[in-house]
Amino acid sequence: MKNILKITVLLSLVIYMFSACESFSKKEKKEIKTIIKEKIDTVIVENTKEKEIVKIIYDTVYVETDTAVSEIKKEEKIFRDPLPAWNDTKTKNRIIDFVKSLTDRKSPDYVAPDYRIAAFDQEGTLWPEKPLYFQIEFMFDRIKEMASDHPEWKKNKLIKAALDKDEEKIQRAGAEGLFKLSTLTQANMTVEQYNGIILNWINTSRHPTTGRLYKEMVYKPMIELINYLKDNGFKVYIVTESGLGFIRPWVEQIYGIPKEQVIGSRRRLKWTEQNGKHVLMRDQEILYINDKANKVISIEQIIGKRPLISLGNSDNDIFMLQWTTEGKGKRLAGLIHHTDAEREWAYDKDSKIGHLEKGLQLAKKNNWMVVDMKNDWKVIY
Amino acid sequence: MKNILKITVLLSLVIYMFSACESFSKKEKKEIKTIIKEKIDTVIVENTKEKEIVKIIYDTVYVETDTAVSEIKKEEKIFRDPLPAWNDTKTKNRIIDFVKSLTDRKSPDYVAPDYRIAAFDQEGTLWPEKPLYFQIEFMFDRIKEMASDHPEWKKNKLIKAALDKDEEKIQRAGAEGLFKLSTLTQANMTVEQYNGIILNWINTSRHPTTGRLYKEMVYKPMIELINYLKDNGFKVYIVTESGLGFIRPWVEQIYGIPKEQVIGSRRRLKWTEQNGKHVLMRDQEILYINDKANKVISIEQIIGKRPLISLGNSDNDIFMLQWTTEGKGKRLAGLIHHTDAEREWAYDKDSKIGHLEKGLQLAKKNNWMVVDMKNDWKVIY
Repeated sequence: MKNILKITVLLSLVIYMFSACESFSKKEKKEIKTIIKEKIDTVIVENTKEKEIVKIIYDTVYVETDTAVSEIKKEEKIFRDPLPAWNDTKTKNRIIDFVKSLTDRKSPDYVAPDYRIAAFDQEGTLWPEKPLYFQIEFMFDRIKEMASDHPEWKKNKLIKAALDKDEEKIQRAGAEGLFKLSTLTQANMTVEQYNGIILNWINTSRHPTTGRLYKEMVYKPMIELINYLKDNGFKVYIVTESGLGFIRPWVEQIYGIPKEQVIGSRRRLKWTEQNGKHVLMRDQEILYINDKANKVISIEQIIGKRPLISLGNSDNDIFMLQWTTEGKGKRLAGLIHHTDAEREWAYDKDSKIGHLEKGLQLAKKNNWMVVDMKNDWKVIY
Repeated sequence: MKNILKITVLLSLVIYMFSACESFSKKEKKEIKTIIKEKIDTVIVENTKEKEIVKIIYDTVYVETDTAVSEIKKEEKIFRDPLPAWNDTKTKNRIIDFVKSLTDRKSPDYVAPDYRIAAFDQEGTLWPEKPLYFQIEFMFDRIKEMASDHPEWKKNKLIKAALDKDEEKIQRAGAEGLFKLSTLTQANMTVEQYNGIILNWINTSRHPTTGRLYKEMVYKPMIELINYLKDNGFKVYIVTESGLGFIRPWVEQIYGIPKEQVIGSRRRLKWTEQNGKHVLMRDQEILYINDKANKVISIEQIIGKRPLISLGNSDNDIFMLQWTTEGKGKRLAGLIHHTDAEREWAYDKDSKIGHLEKGLQLAKKNNWMVVDMKNDWKVIY
């Protein structure tokens, strides 16, 4: 019995090590553990001679573990598809080939995990941007919520347009109008207060045309891609023109991405006191618009490493894609092309939101990947 | 022989898993591997009967590994000091107690690894700041290097003062003078070019009074503290008033901290083209001075999580320490007090550089930790 105890301890150690190792995925570990545990149970029950047990358990652990690992690896290659929501097209194969060549130690394109940086745009790349950017929808929802406390707003034309969701009037008010609505709904509160408002909104608010919760409109193929990259040691950053504070509160919950991997437009923050404690107040001034070349500058200032892969969907993302592909070694730049009027929206050069024209020309010239939503994606959400 | 091969494979697997597991420190892994490897060699040579070999190797791996692990654990508890360069004072015990209570799953103060954020000031906290901030020393060195290509500089009083290292004249030129020297030495080049210049400087330049390479002037007790925190799942950020581009190039080499964990003062960057490729040029404008409350604002904008532990050494760091300790749960704020005129420098309220006065008062009031360099540190570098 003493030996059996020892063996059990050893096997537990092996199992423990399997669990602790990062080289196996969660699914693999679970399957291996199940196999080993089952074998221990049957072996200890069915045999009595200690010496034999040592041998059998040893063989079992070795053979079964080995078989399990190789079978899972095979399954991974043949059956286990890392991107099941993607159709089996050139695009999907290109992504998989890219990731394999960067993570295979024997590949000339191998990159150490510390330098595996991915940068993804948010609006139109990870979720839709129609009929309006979701942060604008948030502002409309918020104004509606706040209106009952502000009877004086009734006289304000801009606020009335927001309450009526009158896109035309809002557009006529231009950037200045949006800035006013933004200040009204997103400034003059602490970062914690705003965080709470956004969390509440993302968990309860619904999109005007699909009726889905906004958080249920994140593209399933992109979630898979994020997970696939994460499983392969990539640090995935969201690099968005949307407000940092608008995206950051829910990225852990929705993407499994830590808060520090969001780079967005930034409002000036003010260090001040409230009820005897220091707070950071969201000021009225927008400090940094994180679009176009500013996305590249933020990547340099905040990460300091050039992405190996970046994905966007509009001409605003061209800069980030150029910065990515002009780096040394193998790189991948991609554009999500909204081609699916039935399941999502179809637009490119004729749309103001998500305008994509020069990007498609550059994609052809530079061999960037163009994701055709209609043909490359099995499902959208 | 077939079995021996199998056993070797199994043992390699065990060894491999030991290597891959994060739960063992590098030292532990090395010792375990050595023991197992030695035993494999002797056992395979000394025995012939296959069955016996299976048993013996098994026992060897199990017993020796187990012994090694438990011995190392014991040593870790009793003998292996995570902070050997620190004297056995209250300060050291406070740090260790703090880390233990945040990382022990059974502790009420337990914090999940994703939220273990540490923020350390650089100048005066991780290396000295006397006689002048090291970035100023760099500028002087750089001007000297560049002077031969700029005969016109001879007429310039400010540059002459820099070449003569005439601190008094430099100080009289004030912030504006420093800004001019900074532009001369640190602007109008690409981020890659500046990166190369800094890497070369840190690896070759020596401090004017100690004669040591600057990179050899990083405080040994602080390196140990960084490693101790990292070993316990903390993400350690450097939050410095020095230029981001001045600190970032060498943090991997010197601290083992990834580049994205440096937050510093930031120069405006310009997206432009050079020889047919896009580059980021370091512009003449300094965009963000990362001092005082700006450190807190950067922490919020870039990390988005409040540090659990932060360390500084001057009144400029008070804001960061307040932000840290005013968060919920157990927190630790600390000030490095330069008290060792013999081994380093001794200064506080009477020094312009690293001025520390209000900080010491607040430390008393708020029970912040004050690190007494003379008494708490066994060695400095």
